[in-house]
Amino acid sequence: MTDLLLKNVRAGRDPVDVLVRGGRIRKIGPALEAEPGMALEDGGGALLLPGLIEGHTHLDKTTWGSPWYVNQVGPALTDRIHNERQWRASTGHDAASHARALALAFLREGATRIRTHVDVDTDAGLRHLDGVHATRQELADRVEIQTVAFPQSGLLVRPGTAELLDRALANGADVLGGLDPSAIDRDPARSLDVLFGLADKHGKPVDIHLHEPGELGAFTLELILDRTQALGMNGKVVISHAFCLGGVDAKRLEGLLGRLAALDVALLTTAPPSRPVPSLRACREAGVTLFGGNDGIRDTWTPYGSPDMLARAMLIGLRNDLRRDDEVEWAFDCVTAAAARACGFADYGLAPGARADLVLVDASCVAEAVAQRAPRRLVVSRGAVVARDGRGA
Amino acid sequence: MTDLLLKNVRAGRDPVDVLVRGGRIRKIGPALEAEPGMALEDGGGALLLPGLIEGHTHLDKTTWGSPWYVNQVGPALTDRIHNERQWRASTGHDAASHARALALAFLREGATRIRTHVDVDTDAGLRHLDGVHATRQELADRVEIQTVAFPQSGLLVRPGTAELLDRALANGADVLGGLDPSAIDRDPARSLDVLFGLADKHGKPVDIHLHEPGELGAFTLELILDRTQALGMNGKVVISHAFCLGGVDAKRLEGLLGRLAALDVALLTTAPPSRPVPSLRACREAGVTLFGGNDGIRDTWTPYGSPDMLARAMLIGLRNDLRRDDEVEWAFDCVTAAAARACGFADYGLAPGARADLVLVDASCVAEAVAQRAPRRLVVSRGAVVARDGRGA
Repeated sequence: MTDLLLKNVRAGRDPVDVLVRGGRIRKIGPALEAEPGMALEDGGGALLLPGLIEGHTHLDKTTWGSPWYVNQVGPALTDRIHNERQWRASTGHDAASHARALALAFLREGATRIRTHVDVDTDAGLRHLDGVHATRQELADRVEIQTVAFPQSGLLVRPGTAELLDRALANGADVLGGLDPSAIDRDPARSLDVLFGLADKHGKPVDIHLHEPGELGAFTLELILDRTQALGMNGKVVISHAFCLGGVDAKRLEGLLGRLAALDVALLTTAPPSRPVPSLRACREAGVTLFGGNDGIRDTWTPYGSPDMLARAMLIGLRNDLRRDDEVEWAFDCVTAAAARACGFADYGLAPGARADLVLVDASCVAEAVAQRAPRRLVVSRGAVVARDGRGA
Repeated sequence: MTDLLLKNVRAGRDPVDVLVRGGRIRKIGPALEAEPGMALEDGGGALLLPGLIEGHTHLDKTTWGSPWYVNQVGPALTDRIHNERQWRASTGHDAASHARALALAFLREGATRIRTHVDVDTDAGLRHLDGVHATRQELADRVEIQTVAFPQSGLLVRPGTAELLDRALANGADVLGGLDPSAIDRDPARSLDVLFGLADKHGKPVDIHLHEPGELGAFTLELILDRTQALGMNGKVVISHAFCLGGVDAKRLEGLLGRLAALDVALLTTAPPSRPVPSLRACREAGVTLFGGNDGIRDTWTPYGSPDMLARAMLIGLRNDLRRDDEVEWAFDCVTAAAARACGFADYGLAPGARADLVLVDASCVAEAVAQRAPRRLVVSRGAVVARDGRGA
């Protein structure tokens, strides 16, 4: 059933109804009337939010749905990369079923669109991607999953990876991923040339994980912007993490943000409390889109993370010391409209014509929903009720 | 009923029972038998934790139990202090009832001991403290509330405050609070002389909020340590926040931590993601007790905060980048044993003789309980069941 009249919800302060036809919002306004054959839901005065968005996770890595993974891993990035490859090989970790378990958990918390990075490497080939694509297909009517073919073990440093990424894009990966062209690949110019060459060949956007700190990261970021500009890929590039933007001086930051804004390159933040991060305030002032995501959830890298995107917005609020209600709404924007814009999720929002992805929460306002991670009362995806009170419908 | 046999719980990996007599743990071990007249609970194999501890909050400031407070406050510390005083005066905010609502919320999440700072100032006098003391009395059989008489508006800068603090201690405040002797009081030596003089007169411990950054904070901290040493107040002093320890160089940090350890001065952290903080790893290596708390919860200062102390431990874990299971247990220590030690909460822990404050959670291990904020299945305070599945019993 994708024809629905949702009565008695609040958009801002005003009580409204939402009329859905064929999975899309037709009208939002007071006192709407049901049309024949339409399902009816009473929202009980709850706050109406648009479907939430996970802008950066790793559905293929999670242990969600399995017993607790006891983490005894060393501290270096390479320790974690090697440990995970070995663990997956030795346990026969199945990306499809874990991705499914976590995607459904996202849905119960109101996230109806997910950008997931999926490892592509010369050990596993496209196995993880095939698994996530199977889940993407299976859940297509409820959760929109966008896949990023991600060279977690490096691109140039593991010969054969570029060819695998080429096949991944041909096989339906939506986005091409990248990883630390300087720190991991040791040859940033060539690494980025190969990466942007593949993106250009397939006409696909890119999303590059840039953990490199300070001036090293800022240098790599400039190389990314040069190629974005040369290929006219404005609006098609995301830089994830971009810790370097939390570690350069104010003048340097201003210059980099100016170029990011001019090329419409978006930034993804997980708002890690233990790392320097791009300032949400500075990004907004410069006109740079910053959006939010978990990164890994309960995997061999991290025991933390949650499919609750309001919890991620709360962490973004805490990380940026956003306290006023109007500021807390900036954090909400990171897991809703800004994420849709950056990832290219179409037909988004609470307006006629948009896909009817709706979330009802027990909160008086958006700031309360974020700061207190308000319970989800109802989740609607493409006009169909998919969860009630945190349980799948 | 404070005689209880709690069957079938896990302490670490082993299934055990817990036998409680007169509100205290008598035995923990396999296959214990109920004694006559004893209540019986089946723990269903859940993980057994000791009662959680909130080491630093402000029960008198919270809006918990009231409609959402829309925050439109300016960014400076003094904006927030003035705004709150005005808001409380104009709304007739009642500390007793709000403290009660929040303390009961803590209890439902498994926190059975709370250190709360309570504003004492020349506008309100001891009104807030009297309110919190009324709640302390009312809830004494379920939640242990320790009060800190706290000069939120400054000590020297508001003449008459020292006399109020003197009365507060005479009236049963457990601890004497302090606030930024340099940044707020503008006369650190005299401010600390007055403060330590009062503590010495009443034989009470002190807990000083030190937000001052970098070398200024380090200087003030030294003045605190000098007085701790002169009065032999080892083990009786807490420094809350101590942001300065996240902002000095390694050699300076080593020296300060060495003195803190030698004088058994403990540190309290809320692990704010947007401020420099003392490193939990460095504190542990130096033998300094670091424990955890929320600070304000849903008040005019902040929209964030939660009575769930496992959520606070999670934030401490994230702030300190603790990922291995054994490291995540350090964060748990901050809201359990380390907090009991620092605040002087007696008879604490999971051992014969300790007060029977017990929490059952749905988790395989402590790391999972923290990182995933495991649901509370059962809360026992002084041997009596006080909450089940997040609802008051």
